[in-house]
Amino acid sequence: MVTASAGLLRAALCALLAAPALGFIPHFHKYEGLGNDFILVDNRETADPVLSPEQSAKLCDRNFGIGGDGVIFALPGEGDLDYKMRIYNSDGSEPEMCGNGIRCMARFLADLDGEKEATYRIGTGAGLIVPVVGGGGLVTVDMGPPELNGPKVPTTLPTGADGAVVAAPLEVAGQQWSVTCVSMGNPHAIVFVNDLNTIKLADIGPLFEHNAVFPARTNTEFVQVLSRSHLKMKVWERGAGATLACGTGACALVVAAVLNGLADRKCTVTLPGGDLVIDWREADNKVYMTGPATPVFSGSVRVQ
Amino acid sequence: MVTASAGLLRAALCALLAAPALGFIPHFHKYEGLGNDFILVDNRETADPVLSPEQSAKLCDRNFGIGGDGVIFALPGEGDLDYKMRIYNSDGSEPEMCGNGIRCMARFLADLDGEKEATYRIGTGAGLIVPVVGGGGLVTVDMGPPELNGPKVPTTLPTGADGAVVAAPLEVAGQQWSVTCVSMGNPHAIVFVNDLNTIKLADIGPLFEHNAVFPARTNTEFVQVLSRSHLKMKVWERGAGATLACGTGACALVVAAVLNGLADRKCTVTLPGGDLVIDWREADNKVYMTGPATPVFSGSVRVQ
Repeated sequence: MVTASAGLLRAALCALLAAPALGFIPHFHKYEGLGNDFILVDNRETADPVLSPEQSAKLCDRNFGIGGDGVIFALPGEGDLDYKMRIYNSDGSEPEMCGNGIRCMARFLADLDGEKEATYRIGTGAGLIVPVVGGGGLVTVDMGPPELNGPKVPTTLPTGADGAVVAAPLEVAGQQWSVTCVSMGNPHAIVFVNDLNTIKLADIGPLFEHNAVFPARTNTEFVQVLSRSHLKMKVWERGAGATLACGTGACALVVAAVLNGLADRKCTVTLPGGDLVIDWREADNKVYMTGPATPVFSGSVRVQ
Repeated sequence: MVTASAGLLRAALCALLAAPALGFIPHFHKYEGLGNDFILVDNRETADPVLSPEQSAKLCDRNFGIGGDGVIFALPGEGDLDYKMRIYNSDGSEPEMCGNGIRCMARFLADLDGEKEATYRIGTGAGLIVPVVGGGGLVTVDMGPPELNGPKVPTTLPTGADGAVVAAPLEVAGQQWSVTCVSMGNPHAIVFVNDLNTIKLADIGPLFEHNAVFPARTNTEFVQVLSRSHLKMKVWERGAGATLACGTGACALVVAAVLNGLADRKCTVTLPGGDLVIDWREADNKVYMTGPATPVFSGSVRVQ
């Protein structure tokens, strides 16, 4: 449907960007992973983010700014790091790490380098992360080993002999549920159900999140087993409510499915925003998450 | 906070846009007027929009696309028209006209022309509109004369001798309200209140919208008079609910304020998304709306 050649359009865009009347300043790139969307900034020339948390929050505004769940800065690395990642959320706060965000950053770096496949050693607030960009634009991230010890998740639900909370009974909203608890750095309660369509997330989610058996509150995943290698989920995120995707939740629920004998260690997980492949590897006990990171648009913006 | 010169950044962006790895296609510009935001497409080379309604709806998606309330195409004019405007809403539907949208289109055309002030004759689905771009990026649009005849608004509320519905009593949610009715091409019920903070819009708005005295349903504006030249409003839009801004609503409420002897013919109206200046001119009985239209960012996007 675009009649002019891409080259001509690029030339026109460049001419337009140079027009002082429009007065644009830096350039940015928008990526999304399962609908979790980020403004990527090529910040490799300076050690600190070129935008403040306040400026980033304004850019994340979906009506008055670019719109996004956060701004990610690709900063120069030091020592044996290729790059450092910093991220400001849409409220200006700074999380240690973000699973969907680092996939987008790795794909962004590969796009900048003109590489279809690449591995990067990236320093984050949560330590070294080594995302692998592979075929089809998919990115694999080592999410570390699961924590299964009940008090460490944390939950006060009864544990088995090994300290794990697997299929523990819990009454919520007058109904009996079977709950498995896994931490992937943050707490998850996983509930297997016969039919996801019966789950009214906005009603039941908050009752799990704030239940007294979860002293640090909890993320809750409701999971329907489609086969031993395909699980479907809805997530209620702690502090965020219903979201399109929760990377750590997808990891946690595959671990829970294995512990319950319901699935293999490598599964496709269908989230509301799309699919992830989760692999809880026996060799190193770590969970590897593979998912999409997609460039959506690129542009320049006036920053105030 | 941007250390490199704007020129260098522009050059870097242009180089990046030319990188085949990123594979971007057309260029676009994002503008907002009082938080109502549109993707503007320079479509002056072809008679029809370069995007389909379906493609436009995808681009309006706030997670997987650019995000926006609609896509506006600046098409070539014919006869005595400078340009034609077409707009696809975020659901792919095509409205006749949009007050906030045409301000954005006029400012976009002036930016393309490198003009600070300009007047354009634009053909729309609702006929000829002649927006005037003035100082400070403000744009004035002739919104036409108000329709005051009760049955034509339409409403079945009792009219005065002149056929207008001014300060008519109406019971809603067990409370007595005083309602003035004005059509600006679409129906408005205007209610003056002492304190806007007391209005629970999500509760009371739908009860006005669907009241039997409004056979075509109604937009409802709750208005607090700050002075004879400054009014503050909250709006419940028919079919859309609470919104940041409603241009025809701002026009209608100034007409209503004049009819109730509460304000002068030229007023500033503070909407949730910002300010409009409304002028109900005695000379031609038309309502002129002046408000901002602001370029936010510009870019290129992959279209599927």
